[in-house]
Amino acid sequence: MLENKNNTKTDLASLGEFGLIEHLTNTVKLQHKSTIKGIGDDAAVLKLKHQTIVTTDLLVEGVHFDLGYVPLKHLGYKAVMVNLSDVYAMNGMAKQITVSIAVSNRFPLEAIEELYVGIHLACKAYNIDLIGGDTTSSTTGLLISITAIGEVKKEDVVYRNGAKPSDLLVVTGDLGGAYLGLQVLEREKQVFKANPNAQPELDKYTYLVERQLKPEARKDIIILLKALEVKPTAMIDISDGLSSEILHICKQSKVGCDLYEAKIPLSQEVISTCEEFNMNSTTVALSGGEDYELLFTIAQSDYDKIKGNPNLTVIGHITAKKDGAYLVTRANQKIELTAQGWNGLS
Amino acid sequence: MLENKNNTKTDLASLGEFGLIEHLTNTVKLQHKSTIKGIGDDAAVLKLKHQTIVTTDLLVEGVHFDLGYVPLKHLGYKAVMVNLSDVYAMNGMAKQITVSIAVSNRFPLEAIEELYVGIHLACKAYNIDLIGGDTTSSTTGLLISITAIGEVKKEDVVYRNGAKPSDLLVVTGDLGGAYLGLQVLEREKQVFKANPNAQPELDKYTYLVERQLKPEARKDIIILLKALEVKPTAMIDISDGLSSEILHICKQSKVGCDLYEAKIPLSQEVISTCEEFNMNSTTVALSGGEDYELLFTIAQSDYDKIKGNPNLTVIGHITAKKDGAYLVTRANQKIELTAQGWNGLS
Repeated sequence: MLENKNNTKTDLASLGEFGLIEHLTNTVKLQHKSTIKGIGDDAAVLKLKHQTIVTTDLLVEGVHFDLGYVPLKHLGYKAVMVNLSDVYAMNGMAKQITVSIAVSNRFPLEAIEELYVGIHLACKAYNIDLIGGDTTSSTTGLLISITAIGEVKKEDVVYRNGAKPSDLLVVTGDLGGAYLGLQVLEREKQVFKANPNAQPELDKYTYLVERQLKPEARKDIIILLKALEVKPTAMIDISDGLSSEILHICKQSKVGCDLYEAKIPLSQEVISTCEEFNMNSTTVALSGGEDYELLFTIAQSDYDKIKGNPNLTVIGHITAKKDGAYLVTRANQKIELTAQGWNGLS
Repeated sequence: MLENKNNTKTDLASLGEFGLIEHLTNTVKLQHKSTIKGIGDDAAVLKLKHQTIVTTDLLVEGVHFDLGYVPLKHLGYKAVMVNLSDVYAMNGMAKQITVSIAVSNRFPLEAIEELYVGIHLACKAYNIDLIGGDTTSSTTGLLISITAIGEVKKEDVVYRNGAKPSDLLVVTGDLGGAYLGLQVLEREKQVFKANPNAQPELDKYTYLVERQLKPEARKDIIILLKALEVKPTAMIDISDGLSSEILHICKQSKVGCDLYEAKIPLSQEVISTCEEFNMNSTTVALSGGEDYELLFTIAQSDYDKIKGNPNLTVIGHITAKKDGAYLVTRANQKIELTAQGWNGLS
């Protein structure tokens, strides 16, 4: 669980709540002019020039992560990414986060420090100010609640509801990796349970495991689209699987779509591991989730601007609502899309 | 646990995550022009004219509340109040909240509906837009994470660090009631455990129990101070007990203070219940916590503006840092103030 292998274990209660917050955040240096006041008062104070984006996500031990194979540093990093991804999906730039944790006394201070190493790392890499939060005990396990704040010019904001028939459906990166990474980690956990002396065999799955444990939010895409002078007509981040996200755009934009199976971007590792696990790679991409790529639609007239960019793949197009939302298979069959994304409540 | 006594119990999983959020929030009507986009996209979008206030709090079952005697409707209401109180403590107006909950499957839908009745009630009473959140399962119990967003003019914001020697120390309302309300509820719980047929005797403690279960954040005070043309030099809300909050102001303003025991505002119910419970009412006010009153300092020259207002009590004055922070007892002894507020980690 701990990357830091020295065995010092400090009881959290010995610091008290204020002591703990101070200890975890005393290295924070505020980067943004828009952060007027960070940690240390009843609330943070910001001055954002444009429109403000607000999003929040809750990660619960035993539901969203298993500390049996998720290092706390990675967990902290990923918890930030999950939130930043939602800000970028509005075509905005993330600026600040608050981080609240509930933690049981089974965690020593050193474990929470590891978690915050990941949080601070994410803040540094994405130029985010940590401006507040809350720290409390929990009766069991660890829970992380993050709120991210971002900024977007009024004319730049992109909702889910602006897709129009004939728009192109575009996805960033490749899909299915995070889900397969989870399968690999789960399998290794079972092997380890059966034989605690077994060495994990993760080398050939490095890419997949990294997609699961250390996803990156696509800030680069927001910068790229601006440079290309492309404003998507609708956008969403892929947290629950491609299928579920496409259906969100279709529902809110009141449109249909044709998604081409053959166009879905898959890495070589996804294809080979699907074969090994006897899984269908299309199903994995459609329903796997946690890829934190961006899915967006653009006007056909913008196609030339994105054509050939290795980060962007056109996977289909928008149709009229009455035409429905379909997957067009390699065999040219049309199958209605259904949301089978990961469901945090099931 | 449930105020709604009909016995319908709907399994949460039957709705799914999106269904649950929609079910709980479909009555939300946005009130503020500053809310451009509420629930339903990757993130909410706001346009706040002035400076933005951001605060967040986490409430955990078994740590912050006991569903043995806290009705879920009250819990929802209080969870909102706790956050609004922090916004008002910056001398700003709260405008929006996000609400995230983690909930175990021991809660039927009807229980979560009760919780949201309280949340919606608080939003209505304080003119707050519910703009987003997250809903997930938990392995045990209920957890509520709320982020509140507010607005304040640059020239109006009040931090903890502006108190100056000779400033007056002022508190709103009266203190100690919430803590005593908790003691009353805890006692009744023990009585009930010993004899499940016992009827709770809460009538004479109505005020105290209400202070504990249904606190009100002091929005009215922010409006009052504006009307009186008084800008505090420092301000904080009283969540952890008067003593702890005074010390926060002293530390951050680099000052000392004399707090007069005889001036601390106590209700008749606090005085009589302290006698009954054989507790010292000053200790209860200093260390009890959860009153959600405001503590602030004002320049002496503003005294005439607040004099005689029944909501405001001058309880002491600020001194130089070297003079230290003291309680001046009724017997005119000086006792150094120590923070013994409630500690969520101990």
